[in-house]
Amino acid sequence: MSTRPATPASGALVRRDLPLLRAYRREPVPFTPVWFMRQAGRALPEYRAVRERAGLADIVRDPALCAEVTLQPVSRLGVDAAIVFADITTPLPGIGVDVRFVEAVGPVIDAPVRTAADVARLAPFDPAESVAPLLEAIRLVRAQSPVPVIGFAGAPFTLASYLVEGRSSRGAARLLALLRSEPGTFHGLLSRLVDTTVAYARAQVGAGAEAIQLFDSWVGVLSPWDYERAVLPHVRRVFAGLADLDVPLVLFGTGTAGLLHLQASSGATVVGLDWRVGLREAWAQLPGLAVQGNLDPSVLLGPFDGVAEQAAWILDQAAGLPGHVFNLGHGVLPPTDPDDLRRLVDLVHHRTAARAGA
Amino acid sequence: MSTRPATPASGALVRRDLPLLRAYRREPVPFTPVWFMRQAGRALPEYRAVRERAGLADIVRDPALCAEVTLQPVSRLGVDAAIVFADITTPLPGIGVDVRFVEAVGPVIDAPVRTAADVARLAPFDPAESVAPLLEAIRLVRAQSPVPVIGFAGAPFTLASYLVEGRSSRGAARLLALLRSEPGTFHGLLSRLVDTTVAYARAQVGAGAEAIQLFDSWVGVLSPWDYERAVLPHVRRVFAGLADLDVPLVLFGTGTAGLLHLQASSGATVVGLDWRVGLREAWAQLPGLAVQGNLDPSVLLGPFDGVAEQAAWILDQAAGLPGHVFNLGHGVLPPTDPDDLRRLVDLVHHRTAARAGA
Repeated sequence: MSTRPATPASGALVRRDLPLLRAYRREPVPFTPVWFMRQAGRALPEYRAVRERAGLADIVRDPALCAEVTLQPVSRLGVDAAIVFADITTPLPGIGVDVRFVEAVGPVIDAPVRTAADVARLAPFDPAESVAPLLEAIRLVRAQSPVPVIGFAGAPFTLASYLVEGRSSRGAARLLALLRSEPGTFHGLLSRLVDTTVAYARAQVGAGAEAIQLFDSWVGVLSPWDYERAVLPHVRRVFAGLADLDVPLVLFGTGTAGLLHLQASSGATVVGLDWRVGLREAWAQLPGLAVQGNLDPSVLLGPFDGVAEQAAWILDQAAGLPGHVFNLGHGVLPPTDPDDLRRLVDLVHHRTAARAGA
Repeated sequence: MSTRPATPASGALVRRDLPLLRAYRREPVPFTPVWFMRQAGRALPEYRAVRERAGLADIVRDPALCAEVTLQPVSRLGVDAAIVFADITTPLPGIGVDVRFVEAVGPVIDAPVRTAADVARLAPFDPAESVAPLLEAIRLVRAQSPVPVIGFAGAPFTLASYLVEGRSSRGAARLLALLRSEPGTFHGLLSRLVDTTVAYARAQVGAGAEAIQLFDSWVGVLSPWDYERAVLPHVRRVFAGLADLDVPLVLFGTGTAGLLHLQASSGATVVGLDWRVGLREAWAQLPGLAVQGNLDPSVLLGPFDGVAEQAAWILDQAAGLPGHVFNLGHGVLPPTDPDDLRRLVDLVHHRTAARAGA
């Protein structure tokens, strides 16, 4: 459907010098760049206004609306990245899996994928056909955004968790049972999702995304033994399939403090940290990589003094080391005050600019 | 109520040489001792038979029945410890907080403790008055058990989570909100729970418990920053209040891979590991302490080959180091086959006895 080149030519060289992309490549930056997972969302009144007239699925299907929502936090918060507004399950209809969104539950799959036959029935994924509105939204954002555009996708294990459980499930009990009892089916499913994820992420870069973040949100349920043998090989195949694109590749999961030394060899060039690990200890396990994180999102539900104190702690741990992008350790919580987010962005910029200038 | 001495005199010296207590003290052992969290419970048919005629609360109120249930896994599985059958909320009625058990939910507190006034209303805890049946059960178990008896209690943060949330809540969102918005109330509540926990654990040792395990199950939601400042001081006060008893003090939590270096200075003599961290990397952060763990309980839902493989991986990481007690990384899952648990006990014993003899 699209005949555009994989990387838009106009301004490409200049954009490589934007702070986020320099930090992701561990190059010197004038200040530490910052963005927030779920920065486009319920914490912003302009987003809630959109949601009064459109559901989640509507937004993702409407390129102009999707671009608008994606850019809202760039304007209001002054963050250094725009991350395309989509759901981890957005590509699933493209492989023949219907998803509906249920308030207070999230995405629900009424016909879960649980058997070898279910896996065999999954359709091949064609991004141009399946996620054309999202790709168009990325083109719109790229054309308008003063900051880099991050594309994202769910990692195979986390996507498989949705497919097998039928909904968000932190414990992933059914998926673990599948791994134990039918490892062939488990690996067949994850392999299919590797192919889907590579095609999906490549299409996003083709449309203008300047970095890709892979969300392996549920991977923290695994022991290092299982992660290394059952999941990491699939993550490696995803990143290997994106390596030639020459964009930063971010791997994020929660509860990964015991897995970081394995994620170090995933092929990611940046590892996102949740808040339950010290940045310094974590980074020591990730030689040669950039890191992103890792303020506890719940701190933002309290007074700003506490936010400032913990943000300083995180920045101090990264001081003098190239390759830190400030973020929360997980998504912005809906009751967060957007003014506090704005103040946090300013704090990160000012504190680290002073340091860079010193 | 009781006039018995703090440590039963008969056989006390001999019992100190039981493998569990030697391993907890990092002394040489003829084989690696093993027990399982939730070893008394739904995985055992004899427990399910008891539950057909008695609820959880009934068991804890009936010393003979409680002792029977506590000893069931010792007979059937051949484990090296008996852990008293109780719930983390068992002492709460003793401070004026009513708890009821709801099937598939767990303990529910209809009048949660959420304000400074609620905290002020908590009653002083008198173990002899509040948990006399449990203490009598410990005496019965101690008299009958060929293996050491472990007493246990919830740690202040995890107990507070039940009190504030009103039920089991992994995210502990309300408790975190209290920490952020009313730190005085938060610390007042945890201080009261320190006093309760010290008195409760001392009473268990007085009744015959030969080690104490403190469960801080929900502490894995915290950043190292908050753990160190808001929670660890309370844990230290609990262990300081037990130090003169000269029994092993075990600290267990889940999701603690990023907190272990802080738990090292908690006053615990043993740290329990969940399955989401490699035993070797974890132990390196716990100089001078014993460790307990850390097989993923979900592995036992698959073929025994997988259990044997991962158990060997764990034992190999501990080989040659004094102070390892084998356990699961969390409680036995109800669908687990007790024959597999028995085989696992035998495997741990035989593999490590061969090594000790080599």
